[in-house]
Amino acid sequence: MPKVEVCFTPQAFSLFANDEANVVVIDVLRATSAICTAFYNGVSKMIPVATVEEAREYQKNGFMAAAERNAEIVEGFELGNSPFGYMSNRVKGKTIALTTTNGTQAIEAAKNARKVIIGSFLNQDVVAEYLVAQQRDVILLCAGWKNKFNLEDTLLAGFFVEALLHNGYDMDCDSALAAQTLYNIAKEDIFEFLSKSSHRSRLSKLDLERDIRYCLTPNQTPVIPVLEGKHLVKMNVAVQAVSK
Amino acid sequence: MPKVEVCFTPQAFSLFANDEANVVVIDVLRATSAICTAFYNGVSKMIPVATVEEAREYQKNGFMAAAERNAEIVEGFELGNSPFGYMSNRVKGKTIALTTTNGTQAIEAAKNARKVIIGSFLNQDVVAEYLVAQQRDVILLCAGWKNKFNLEDTLLAGFFVEALLHNGYDMDCDSALAAQTLYNIAKEDIFEFLSKSSHRSRLSKLDLERDIRYCLTPNQTPVIPVLEGKHLVKMNVAVQAVSK
Repeated sequence: MPKVEVCFTPQAFSLFANDEANVVVIDVLRATSAICTAFYNGVSKMIPVATVEEAREYQKNGFMAAAERNAEIVEGFELGNSPFGYMSNRVKGKTIALTTTNGTQAIEAAKNARKVIIGSFLNQDVVAEYLVAQQRDVILLCAGWKNKFNLEDTLLAGFFVEALLHNGYDMDCDSALAAQTLYNIAKEDIFEFLSKSSHRSRLSKLDLERDIRYCLTPNQTPVIPVLEGKHLVKMNVAVQAVSK
Repeated sequence: MPKVEVCFTPQAFSLFANDEANVVVIDVLRATSAICTAFYNGVSKMIPVATVEEAREYQKNGFMAAAERNAEIVEGFELGNSPFGYMSNRVKGKTIALTTTNGTQAIEAAKNARKVIIGSFLNQDVVAEYLVAQQRDVILLCAGWKNKFNLEDTLLAGFFVEALLHNGYDMDCDSALAAQTLYNIAKEDIFEFLSKSSHRSRLSKLDLERDIRYCLTPNQTPVIPVLEGKHLVKMNVAVQAVSK
């Protein structure tokens, strides 16, 4: 029986070594929500990079580039990690280099995994369906906040744990059990449950309540971004259905 | 207002750097439970060491020594981390070197903190009272399992978070909020809540149910072990009441 595990931070990822596992990277507020929104709005490719300097290099070479640090757009960039930045015809067909405080670091940590999938509430059901169809070990990698545990990523991990346990998966780690338990308490009103969380409070100070509400809304962007080499691309739906 | 934070694993401890904080090391199953039991039964000092080899060195030099790896006593040692091993006149007045899979690693990670306190359900109230009297920042350091998150340590951390928030403390990290939430769900029957947890299952296979039930019982050993230099000693009760 395939198993599902939850890794709360990129720092801990190497402890979960499993070459057979599909990895879902989760950074609800807001990198993976922005990536899903970008592909849903026709972005062609995204290039996740670890540093602002790398993003600037791509910019100099004529690429669109996005950079966020500490929840704000870095000076000199037109895009950060707000999903609303990617709801525009301007991004259609484009390749965009992207660096964020946590999300792109998590992608970097997972890059050698069998498959790296981008998960958010915005694409929760299509990702869950894909994982269930695969019946392979799954590691849910939460981006957290600067390698500390965060709640919003944990709740989405809990959604996936719940979905997989009902569909042929087993779990053997306490972090999966904790995520599932927290998700089941929170699921009726995740926005309210997160009202005391540190990152919601961080973003509220920056007047980003609209972003938060959007990022917590299920199934707004039914696409599956996936890492291919150094690029994120949209998984082909036909492939989705049959690939093992 | 002093704040309380929860660090889920020794690996993450360096991210919580705070020279002013008192650190409570938690390894419910079973190192910190065994340490509390040892001091309650008259052990004079304990020397936490990272490796089995170091414990053997102390043994060769005439010390009592205890060693546990993967929940079992290491060959050649008479004590491991079962609290029941320390309920004997044999240990009274002794200095015991101790190495365990997780607990002594957590103590090692925290050793430079202002104060390192040993916490377990067995001494939960005296530790909470001490922390409340201090009104200093607190980091609750869970030993986890080989640097992965575990539930039983998280639940005890949640007990302390709850106690401190009601007594002049604030929290600003999601791990504290998660621990508090999980504790409040579990508190009516922690043994039952942990029935699906990975470490309870690991210990059940080894027929250690009696150990588990004991380690989850509040206030059996009202003592506060504390690190002084390289030794754990029992905190003087008079000091407890007045020290700041």
